[in-house]
Amino acid sequence: MTEPVDELIDDLIGDLPAIDHADRARRICDAADGTTLYTDLTDVRWLTGFNGSNGWAIARCDELIVGTDGRYGDKARAETAGTGATVIVEQQAAKLHQRLVETLGDQPIGLDASSVPHATWQRLAADVDLVDRPSPVKLARRTKDPAEVARIDAAARIADAALADVEANLCGMTELDVRAELEHSMIRLGADDRSYDTIVASGPDHGARPHHGASRRTIIEGDTVIIDVGALVDGYHSDMTRSWVMGEATAEQREIYALVVAAQQAGLDATHPGARASDIDAACREVFDDAGYLDWYIHGTGHGVGLDIHETPFHSPVSTDSILADYVVTVEPGLYRGGFGGFRIEDLLLVTTPNTPTDPGYRVLTHSPKRELN
Amino acid sequence: MTEPVDELIDDLIGDLPAIDHADRARRICDAADGTTLYTDLTDVRWLTGFNGSNGWAIARCDELIVGTDGRYGDKARAETAGTGATVIVEQQAAKLHQRLVETLGDQPIGLDASSVPHATWQRLAADVDLVDRPSPVKLARRTKDPAEVARIDAAARIADAALADVEANLCGMTELDVRAELEHSMIRLGADDRSYDTIVASGPDHGARPHHGASRRTIIEGDTVIIDVGALVDGYHSDMTRSWVMGEATAEQREIYALVVAAQQAGLDATHPGARASDIDAACREVFDDAGYLDWYIHGTGHGVGLDIHETPFHSPVSTDSILADYVVTVEPGLYRGGFGGFRIEDLLLVTTPNTPTDPGYRVLTHSPKRELN
Repeated sequence: MTEPVDELIDDLIGDLPAIDHADRARRICDAADGTTLYTDLTDVRWLTGFNGSNGWAIARCDELIVGTDGRYGDKARAETAGTGATVIVEQQAAKLHQRLVETLGDQPIGLDASSVPHATWQRLAADVDLVDRPSPVKLARRTKDPAEVARIDAAARIADAALADVEANLCGMTELDVRAELEHSMIRLGADDRSYDTIVASGPDHGARPHHGASRRTIIEGDTVIIDVGALVDGYHSDMTRSWVMGEATAEQREIYALVVAAQQAGLDATHPGARASDIDAACREVFDDAGYLDWYIHGTGHGVGLDIHETPFHSPVSTDSILADYVVTVEPGLYRGGFGGFRIEDLLLVTTPNTPTDPGYRVLTHSPKRELN
Repeated sequence: MTEPVDELIDDLIGDLPAIDHADRARRICDAADGTTLYTDLTDVRWLTGFNGSNGWAIARCDELIVGTDGRYGDKARAETAGTGATVIVEQQAAKLHQRLVETLGDQPIGLDASSVPHATWQRLAADVDLVDRPSPVKLARRTKDPAEVARIDAAARIADAALADVEANLCGMTELDVRAELEHSMIRLGADDRSYDTIVASGPDHGARPHHGASRRTIIEGDTVIIDVGALVDGYHSDMTRSWVMGEATAEQREIYALVVAAQQAGLDATHPGARASDIDAACREVFDDAGYLDWYIHGTGHGVGLDIHETPFHSPVSTDSILADYVVTVEPGLYRGGFGGFRIEDLLLVTTPNTPTDPGYRVLTHSPKRELN
């Protein structure tokens, strides 16, 4: 049975400011054009407060309407109470579809074509004048308000504390033991859940797969180890990665680890309001390229974090996005090679408007030390 | 630090037979018409063995091709090794799309319109002759082979054991403590993970929401409590629900609980090879309707379970599906009312061909007792 850890919970979470969904609905109404249908459940949650596995929201200037099925009726009414939203509940999918069509009426309806299956779009387009329009909510979600930052910050501190508990004892544990320990610890520290399936990737094969999960492999002397872990607090995610060598590092391990540390610092140095996501990516990539290791780098450099663990903007060579103040983003270069293993270092950053010439333009939300190798 | 529990793991999981992906690819080739593109990641995993968060598969009679991004290259090659699949890896989404288009060529390509966002369908349809066709893999996935049943059965036994550990101590714990305890226990018992976010719904408000998650509410005397919990073993899910009253039950609680038990038994009795999913749903609904409680029943009666926690067929009044031998399905009626709370009872069943006149036509994979109320 789990012991209560109330003092710790107070320490790490504190009093979270309320989220003002009514204000969001007003802001989106000012920014949006006509009537918009939201089918992405994270958009629905951000806009209305309703958090279920089935539903949609309609936003017009004068009203907000949420539809869902019978399992979620009470929950949707409770969670949207502050917004004045009308809640439509139908047990049968066909009836809920019919109510949606009736509510949308004859005017053109904005819907983001990336947020709905082709079959659903086709069925709806038979009855409704759909216009493919990027979701105004998805864009607004990039900018985090203080209530959101408080949640992400608390989640990051919980993951830091959970990692601090386990990191001295990795050698001899299985990857899955480490994962279970971290996830249980985050709940005890006040998280509602893990942020995503924790990655514990050890040794020459698993360590070389950036998105390896966690297996029953026992971590042994000589291994490279990557742990990618975050917590969830009131729907908001944190995200961080740290890497280690078990025991004394070889010269090759030292060289590769130092490159990852240097690339990650280059990515941080390139982050400030107005920076292009592609430039942050290029800053990391250049360090690897100069050292002749660019083909060991097989993923993007970062992404936004909020109600989704992976949100826009994405830091990649082909991104056309810029990073603005109040975005929360990761910087997470890594190097991987089968037979060697791998390293990744990832911090979570709140982008900030610099107040002084030496202000870097971000605040690091991750506080876990980046360890020196033995 | 988690203690190793090797004897328990051996007990509950045993030796799992290997999954023969090459055989699946052959069977699907025999059943499918021309070239099929799979974008549903569970379809891709079932068919090829590749388990990642981004990718697709192409199945033609003479070949199997898997595409994914740089994070998953090594993993995809390792996981599909037994099938002879060609693996295409491109770090950039645009390049991977280009390789997909080149590989598909000029012939008509079957794609399930429900498995792909409208925006993706439109982009692909600009270069490829797409035909909307239900996924042959999705249909084949309903029928579980012995290797799949072994995994689901192990997952069900792990969830049973985890629930047995915690159920005597619910009163005084928070919902989230119960959830953390169950999920940690399942990992220690050999599960790779929980099957889904465990539901612990207690008291007059939470208990009335069938898909309430778990909160910091403390479970107290007089509460109704619903726990919906499953384990994950090698990608395969289990699913079960049990309900309790804390302390001595009231007359109303007894009446409602007895109705849920009776409805669940009626659903089991209606389950056999050839039964219509809508008839199983109707059997449960009739018990509630006869007692005047039909409006307390606000969800469907069951669903298939496999690599996804919710698969076809779905037991609802509008279903046109039948249940066949070797399907794995749930039967899970419940009654809910704000101010009262709720009860749900759910078993996981393997549908079987009856060998004798008294054989019910299913084997119950859930072994947790359905407790009598105090």
